[in-house]
Amino acid sequence: MKKAILIIQCPDQKGIVAQVSKFLYSYEGNILEVDQHVDENLGMFFMRAAWELDSFSLEKDEIAARFKEEVGDRFQMEFKLHFNFPKPRMAIFVSKLSHCLFDILGRHYAGQLEVDIPLVVSNHPNLKQVVEAFGIPFHHIPITSETKAAAEANQLGLMKANQIDFVVLARYMQILSAEFIQHFPNRIINIHHSFLPAFVGAKPYHAAFERGVKIIGATAHYVTEELDAGPIIEQEVARVRHHNTIAELVQIGQDVEKVVLSKAIKYHLDRKVMPINNKTVIFY
Amino acid sequence: MKKAILIIQCPDQKGIVAQVSKFLYSYEGNILEVDQHVDENLGMFFMRAAWELDSFSLEKDEIAARFKEEVGDRFQMEFKLHFNFPKPRMAIFVSKLSHCLFDILGRHYAGQLEVDIPLVVSNHPNLKQVVEAFGIPFHHIPITSETKAAAEANQLGLMKANQIDFVVLARYMQILSAEFIQHFPNRIINIHHSFLPAFVGAKPYHAAFERGVKIIGATAHYVTEELDAGPIIEQEVARVRHHNTIAELVQIGQDVEKVVLSKAIKYHLDRKVMPINNKTVIFY
Amino acid sequence: MKKAILIIQCPDQKGIVAQVSKFLYSYEGNILEVDQHVDENLGMFFMRAAWELDSFSLEKDEIAARFKEEVGDRFQMEFKLHFNFPKPRMAIFVSKLSHCLFDILGRHYAGQLEVDIPLVVSNHPNLKQVVEAFGIPFHHIPITSETKAAAEANQLGLMKANQIDFVVLARYMQILSAEFIQHFPNRIINIHHSFLPAFVGAKPYHAAFERGVKIIGATAHYVTEELDAGPIIEQEVARVRHHNTIAELVQIGQDVEKVVLSKAIKYHLDRKVMPINNKTVIFY
Amino acid sequence: MKKAILIIQCPDQKGIVAQVSKFLYSYEGNILEVDQHVDENLGMFFMRAAWELDSFSLEKDEIAARFKEEVGDRFQMEFKLHFNFPKPRMAIFVSKLSHCLFDILGRHYAGQLEVDIPLVVSNHPNLKQVVEAFGIPFHHIPITSETKAAAEANQLGLMKANQIDFVVLARYMQILSAEFIQHFPNRIINIHHSFLPAFVGAKPYHAAFERGVKIIGATAHYVTEELDAGPIIEQEVARVRHHNTIAELVQIGQDVEKVVLSKAIKYHLDRKVMPINNKTVIFY
Repeated sequence: MKKAILIIQCPDQKGIVAQVSKFLYSYEGNILEVDQHVDENLGMFFMRAAWELDSFSLEKDEIAARFKEEVGDRFQMEFKLHFNFPKPRMAIFVSKLSHCLFDILGRHYAGQLEVDIPLVVSNHPNLKQVVEAFGIPFHHIPITSETKAAAEANQLGLMKANQIDFVVLARYMQILSAEFIQHFPNRIINIHHSFLPAFVGAKPYHAAFERGVKIIGATAHYVTEELDAGPIIEQEVARVRHHNTIAELVQIGQDVEKVVLSKAIKYHLDRKVMPINNKTVIFY
Repeated sequence: MKKAILIIQCPDQKGIVAQVSKFLYSYEGNILEVDQHVDENLGMFFMRAAWELDSFSLEKDEIAARFKEEVGDRFQMEFKLHFNFPKPRMAIFVSKLSHCLFDILGRHYAGQLEVDIPLVVSNHPNLKQVVEAFGIPFHHIPITSETKAAAEANQLGLMKANQIDFVVLARYMQILSAEFIQHFPNRIINIHHSFLPAFVGAKPYHAAFERGVKIIGATAHYVTEELDAGPIIEQEVARVRHHNTIAELVQIGQDVEKVVLSKAIKYHLDRKVMPINNKTVIFY
Repeated sequence: MKKAILIIQCPDQKGIVAQVSKFLYSYEGNILEVDQHVDENLGMFFMRAAWELDSFSLEKDEIAARFKEEVGDRFQMEFKLHFNFPKPRMAIFVSKLSHCLFDILGRHYAGQLEVDIPLVVSNHPNLKQVVEAFGIPFHHIPITSETKAAAEANQLGLMKANQIDFVVLARYMQILSAEFIQHFPNRIINIHHSFLPAFVGAKPYHAAFERGVKIIGATAHYVTEELDAGPIIEQEVARVRHHNTIAELVQIGQDVEKVVLSKAIKYHLDRKVMPINNKTVIFY
Repeated sequence: MKKAILIIQCPDQKGIVAQVSKFLYSYEGNILEVDQHVDENLGMFFMRAAWELDSFSLEKDEIAARFKEEVGDRFQMEFKLHFNFPKPRMAIFVSKLSHCLFDILGRHYAGQLEVDIPLVVSNHPNLKQVVEAFGIPFHHIPITSETKAAAEANQLGLMKANQIDFVVLARYMQILSAEFIQHFPNRIINIHHSFLPAFVGAKPYHAAFERGVKIIGATAHYVTEELDAGPIIEQEVARVRHHNTIAELVQIGQDVEKVVLSKAIKYHLDRKVMPINNKTVIFY
């Protein structure tokens, strides 16, 4: 089913829901999902609405302008209009660890993710065979401190050539440059292997072991220039015990990582994530 | 804050959200919460909307009639209009086990439950002292097979005298008669100590132990004439291990029971539960 | 590290732990793990002990006889002695759904499962390419009601030729014959897509949807002749809401299924599962 | 049933389990529970064993000396011998918030906690009536910055007069002095309302709200001089959403706090907690 999805933010006031739904109704829109949120501290109103496009009486290309004119301007709205077609194009960056990558590929194979995956990029060659068995091109771009700038230029070229909409770091163990990040604002999803804000940075499972926590976690977030500090999209945890070694924490944690990252990708694809300041609204 | 809450069901068609929100807006309603649900099998639309009453330009007593006239009739709606005042009046029925009762009393004490509790009814005397320390009258109504009819008549008299809106069975180990139930359709909440539909009936922890399940649970549901078969409001589970005795299952399970029952009460109080056929929509 | 693992059951009495640990100590055994369980209803004692083999002063082939003579006979023990080498040999049976299979293959690839997978058997051809990319032979054995007996004979031949120790049904949608099951007593692991004993049989997600449960689950169990009634190894659940369609329940449930099945395989491989009557002890 | 419980730590070497279990067996000990743990980094062995005392052939007062002589000295053990009688004596400190206190009192009432509670101490008077309805003396000791030293002296006097074994801070909003803490090393249990090490210090729910986490938590730990940095006994979490206000985080979190604190008390009472450096082993 072809869908349009509208994401709105504006100063809070009365009548917004009424005007938005009236607009959709006046063009025969069959509303499929609607969710809204008021942030009382910010005095801001947020809304997401999805409707069937086939029976809508406005042309796809007219909708944004007409909505701006009839509703948006009146409420000083910032809004984005999305469609669930063509499918977004997602690049996956990965290093050696396979668990997040395979989880994504498995879901994609099973038809759970409405996305095209034009390529997987890795600084190691080992995952090539399985990726290609899933019918996805694999690009091995080794990185050393000397070649890093050139490697990123190469990566960015691939992103452009493949018209990539957003990037998923599926346990990619290289830190992206500020320049790379600026090409994809709130469009790079990283999985960090701790329950942020606990255990920022390298070796969080070691830090968790040292502190003797009884629960470990993982966090999917949009990448910003400050390491592990971007808007959190999703988190999950798992229980551990004193006898678990660091290697066992890693293994238990990997099960959490892959679930969290795949959920974050799904929310992003469904246009359910709205970053605000350094947080996210996740619409249902 | 004084709130009005509207719960709607009607055949699904376009424009319902638009008309409902237009109605609220036209009388200066500041919408606080709105959630809707379409059941595609039934072809039915369900909606809950809450708005501030103080700034609303219709009188409290006019709202229902005006809504029916302007919106309800047009969409063949069944709807209920609630207000968050005066507080609903809840009776608690309990036998000997204290955990659910104390959890409810503790939450009520802490201001978490917007409800009046005019009385606790028990077929045993043991919980009297604590209940009264919370400032709530305690009625001991013993029940034997001979006195059951008279006891229920006594209970019903107390319900009427205290203008009880709904009843909570907080591990009340007597089966209510069909007649009693008919006084409170979808207004008696029971906690069953299993993950329904597994282990219907008596001694579910024994049955769970026998089957060797690895997870036990509890279910809060509206009471209907068929035992343990009414619409489920909430469920939760806890992990158990082979070495847990039945007594330990009981203790682990009690922690689940009290959380589930209190959540169900909260949903009910917030007018977030809509029973449909033998299921429930739980609005957010 | 080479390990020996001893699994014991016997009538409960004093001194068992002392004698078992004395035996291990007397031959220089370095105990790595030990767990025991007393079933007071049955009056039975259960124990699992694992120790390093390299420093043990008995030859691998002598241990069982010596243990029987020095300890086992005295306490009327039934015991099994396992080693963590050579790796057990596991066959995977699958139909069309990929999620459990891919999860197992991914874990095997990542070195999480100490097992050899000589083959995957399927009644459909679609998963061949990915399975083979993981370096595992794929056998397509179509099944119709006419060919079922011949197909099972074919399967059993493959099991024998590949010296298969145990079989995993990773959403294999055919019912195995009693004869097949008898070849692998407590050595066929099935994943059932409900929280047993709720929703036995076909289409459990449909049944869960009908009943309006708030939580769904999955159960890994050993296969016995009675459908979905064998000893439960592991269970897990996930929360659902009224708006989830059956298709969404299926998708949410698949995430639970794959985790539960992989955990059950891991427990089985680590010799941590002891079936007793129709339940399991899961040693830590 | 009268039980003895032995908690052991010593440098790891072979034969410890054998010697300990032989000791118990040689005096007719019926072992009820045994668990051990090897910390390979520290090279240390930890063990907990519980056995029936009635059938044990050593007198209660002889056990420690005999164990030291026959086993402990040989392995350079540090060990503690506990009995499950007389019941330990627990003081509860609380401020205004009732949820943790009521949860403990409810469990104690229901017979879940094998402990005597000679008194509740509070710097506010409001919880007096309910505490006394449970038959427990309530001491109101107001605290200001001027009276703090005197108040603590008063509290310590009460601890001594009531022969208090350990103290539970059930949301007690005063910081204890180093001197007070030194009277109860690893015998003061605090509940911190965050998932440590995230959000140390005051107002963790505000901090969680600011960071936009999707899960909040609570941590029970032994109190050390460094704030919120002592050995963690238990943790638990709950899921939150972007629309939850800080007040809702508080309420959701309180349900977690009370469960975590009560679990930690139970582990402590059952002598299942062994603090090591700044972590805990939790025996099963």
